[in-house]
Amino acid sequence: MTAPAPPTELLVCVKCRKGMDVPADDRRPGQRLYDEITARDAPEGVRVTAVECLQNCDYGCTVALRGGDRWTYVFGNVDEASHSDMLLEGASLYHQTADGLIPWRQRPEHFKRNCIARIPPLTPQTQEPAE
Amino acid sequence: MTAPAPPTELLVCVKCRKGMDVPADDRRPGQRLYDEITARDAPEGVRVTAVECLQNCDYGCTVALRGGDRWTYVFGNVDEASHSDMLLEGASLYHQTADGLIPWRQRPEHFKRNCIARIPPLTPQTQEPAE
Repeated sequence: MTAPAPPTELLVCVKCRKGMDVPADDRRPGQRLYDEITARDAPEGVRVTAVECLQNCDYGCTVALRGGDRWTYVFGNVDEASHSDMLLEGASLYHQTADGLIPWRQRPEHFKRNCIARIPPLTPQTQEPAE
Repeated sequence: MTAPAPPTELLVCVKCRKGMDVPADDRRPGQRLYDEITARDAPEGVRVTAVECLQNCDYGCTVALRGGDRWTYVFGNVDEASHSDMLLEGASLYHQTADGLIPWRQRPEHFKRNCIARIPPLTPQTQEPAE
């Protein structure tokens, strides 16, 4: 038996307006995206988390993937109506990696072209901070 | 005595070309930025870390701030020649916060206008991942 992979978190910005003037009582595109995603079964090991503003407002909707010793990835230009299956499949592929780097050929096309930024894993510190 | 704030890490993308065609043997803008920053004294509690590609290549140079239970912030459009002092001052202000949110009035102007994305802190999980 091998140890289970550390959990993966799919963060979804639920405040995203996609640059539109959304009435206060209307459901925002980010919330629609979250609702679409959570209406589906999450892949094994993947948790979906609502987040208030990932501050990628010019290129929304926006999601991020993180967990364990993997790189954290932020993806933008997500379509709230059509991208939920792709995101969950991408999250599953991400979860199967140790470092967060989905092999290029397997990587969803949207991930290839809409990576906003990535953050390295927290690694053991080899240098002390300045006192 | 109060406990010291958890360390802050200032990540600097040293591979950044800023969209330029940099000769292989030439120092890249990202490396110049890192060299400029590390030539200065880091503020208390701040560690500067070189990173290979934060994948914000369209809006480089790029840095990120993270540490403790703070939000992680990615900032773009950094100028390798003139922004080192501002970045270290911003890192110090960030370090003095518990959540990573520098009060707006204190926040460097560059941070206000060039936030590429932010990632929430890892918080205690209230929901189990799907099995």
